[in-house]
Amino acid sequence: MGDTATTHHTKSANNGANDNQIGFKSRVSVIGSGSWGSVAAKLVAFNTLNLSSFHDEVKMWVFEETLQSGEKLTDAINRTNENVKYLPGIKLGKNVIADPDLDNAVEDANMLVFVTPHQFIDNICKSLVGKVRSDAEAISLIKGMEVKIEGPCLISTYISEQLGINCSVLMGANLANEIAEEKFSEATVGYRNNREIAEQWVQLFTTPYFMVTPVQDVEGVELCGTLKNVVAIAAGFVDGLDMGNNTKAAIIRFGLREMREFCKLLFSSVKDDTFFESCGVADVITTCFGGRNRKVAEAFARNGGKRLALKHLVHKLNPDIRQIVTLLFLIHRSFDELEAEMLQGQKLQGVTTVREVYEVLRHRGLLELFPLFATVHEICSGCLPPSAIVIYSEKKNIFPV
Amino acid sequence: MGDTATTHHTKSANNGANDNQIGFKSRVSVIGSGSWGSVAAKLVAFNTLNLSSFHDEVKMWVFEETLQSGEKLTDAINRTNENVKYLPGIKLGKNVIADPDLDNAVEDANMLVFVTPHQFIDNICKSLVGKVRSDAEAISLIKGMEVKIEGPCLISTYISEQLGINCSVLMGANLANEIAEEKFSEATVGYRNNREIAEQWVQLFTTPYFMVTPVQDVEGVELCGTLKNVVAIAAGFVDGLDMGNNTKAAIIRFGLREMREFCKLLFSSVKDDTFFESCGVADVITTCFGGRNRKVAEAFARNGGKRLALKHLVHKLNPDIRQIVTLLFLIHRSFDELEAEMLQGQKLQGVTTVREVYEVLRHRGLLELFPLFATVHEICSGCLPPSAIVIYSEKKNIFPV
Repeated sequence: MGDTATTHHTKSANNGANDNQIGFKSRVSVIGSGSWGSVAAKLVAFNTLNLSSFHDEVKMWVFEETLQSGEKLTDAINRTNENVKYLPGIKLGKNVIADPDLDNAVEDANMLVFVTPHQFIDNICKSLVGKVRSDAEAISLIKGMEVKIEGPCLISTYISEQLGINCSVLMGANLANEIAEEKFSEATVGYRNNREIAEQWVQLFTTPYFMVTPVQDVEGVELCGTLKNVVAIAAGFVDGLDMGNNTKAAIIRFGLREMREFCKLLFSSVKDDTFFESCGVADVITTCFGGRNRKVAEAFARNGGKRLALKHLVHKLNPDIRQIVTLLFLIHRSFDELEAEMLQGQKLQGVTTVREVYEVLRHRGLLELFPLFATVHEICSGCLPPSAIVIYSEKKNIFPV
Repeated sequence: MGDTATTHHTKSANNGANDNQIGFKSRVSVIGSGSWGSVAAKLVAFNTLNLSSFHDEVKMWVFEETLQSGEKLTDAINRTNENVKYLPGIKLGKNVIADPDLDNAVEDANMLVFVTPHQFIDNICKSLVGKVRSDAEAISLIKGMEVKIEGPCLISTYISEQLGINCSVLMGANLANEIAEEKFSEATVGYRNNREIAEQWVQLFTTPYFMVTPVQDVEGVELCGTLKNVVAIAAGFVDGLDMGNNTKAAIIRFGLREMREFCKLLFSSVKDDTFFESCGVADVITTCFGGRNRKVAEAFARNGGKRLALKHLVHKLNPDIRQIVTLLFLIHRSFDELEAEMLQGQKLQGVTTVREVYEVLRHRGLLELFPLFATVHEICSGCLPPSAIVIYSEKKNIFPV
């Protein structure tokens, strides 16, 4: 598939202004084509058309599917310039070329945008070993790393190590559908050492409706994108208990603070200011007022709360009645059941993350310093009722100023 | 009026544990009795009963009114233990004694809680000169200082200077009705130098459902309580324009950052961490999702937006038609009209504050560094349409890391 070059007239109009690096043009590939991947391709494609330091064409690797019509998804995308399955109604730009062949999609690219579901990145990286340019730069838009006892498995680090290339991250308050509709949003680019590379990513993603700020703190930025889901679960409990605005704001604040302290615990390089960026406070707010972690947690508090209250009662009953009452629990729902019902088989990231975080804190003997994270896990796992989320009276002044 | 001492049994039970300062008991007076004042009295009265270092009785100065029934408000409060007019249905505690006589209410008190509407503090302080104990400590719960070109008139500083006593502040995400219902909330005490005094205020306000954190940054804490209203107006515009969650989170974040930078500009002692406290991020969230500043701004964006779009068109019409169209503006509403209609004569603090902030920034030639604050004022004053709130493409990276 060659360079389609459909709109060279646009670029030639401002060749003089932008053509700083004469002779070298970056080639961008987007690996992933869900709704966020498609939006990322749209943002990038807008800029590659208008900046002369980039080739127009943006290849987008698509996990091939056959649509109900019998047409292949890649063919449909290339025919309509829309991701008809995952982002229907949004034109991605004629210079976005869908490609079902991963090797082919990354060939020649020196800027690789990773934006797949987090559970696929392992296989994708393994199959890309030896296939990417040695001078390529990567950026990960993937939220949801694993937090192991020996430390968190940053997806950016994983990509970096597997492919032998540098990897930055882009995180923020980014509900894909809203950006697709060109409603004003912003994001944070977390980079490791090279400010110039960060500026290139900023240039590639910035549009009049999408503002991007670079921060030299790849760990902090990436961890925010995972830990915020834990805070959203806490916020969902508050919603489910009808506790009001003050309570929710307090819980969000505790969560943001514990995110910050947890990140600093894992990486001493993490900066306080990162949590004032889009990836921090803004993404936490978005996730705590929208998002599925909050939603399922709210449902859990409404259902699970009752369930646990009953459970405590059961122990006081005589054994004959106990068995009958235990059966009654079946009409109430566990987190797993709610997940299955509300998310059509997808797992709730926050529940997994907080279990991992809990293990790390327990292993280090630091659970007491993170009462919100600890309580969220204990509620999710059924050890505490949802109302425990606000029992802070004995745990105050955790991080005194 | 003597010490009512209705529940000495409660206190005597833990005399041993708390009686650190044998022989001296603090006396608390609450100056103000609106909904927030009444809640403050309830919080304080709970603790004075249970802590042996305080006299049980809490005097609450009430601006006397005659109720429809013909009964005086103070008599009704003392008869029912409820503020039947401003916080009906909530028992304040039998040890709260309403007093219509200001001099009498503060006599003997060594801890004064100021919680009146901000426009009354001037007269109250003037009439208190020479009447308060010279060793008294004050705390202000009043939000809404004036920001003059020569600097902000902190209400805490004003109280301090007028009465010759030290004054701390208490601010936070504190919707009075929710705290009255004992829903979990928190607040920040901002203090100047004396940590012991701060701890005393913390002790006096903390209950199992109300968590209080001390911060040595009286200016930062007090300024938060005023500046958050400006951010709430910006958030209201976003709501009125139906811009979505990403946009709102971004605007809240920009607002929080400009609050921080503005405070640091005015007082170099202001700490970054203050904005992670309840008075900072939590109060901003509460105010941007509830509160009247947000609400009126939303209505303005829905109405005023149309109004301004029309205004721009008018200049293109011929003079005859122009006059007719100008008349049509009358069906749309200005901020003043909306305020009058929605707030029954109360003024919207955020609009006043942002005008003052704008003048300070213009005076110092710093408007460009505060695009959100500047834009909010320009929208409120009719110079820009509400949609200008998200035109940030040329103003990015205001405070680069």
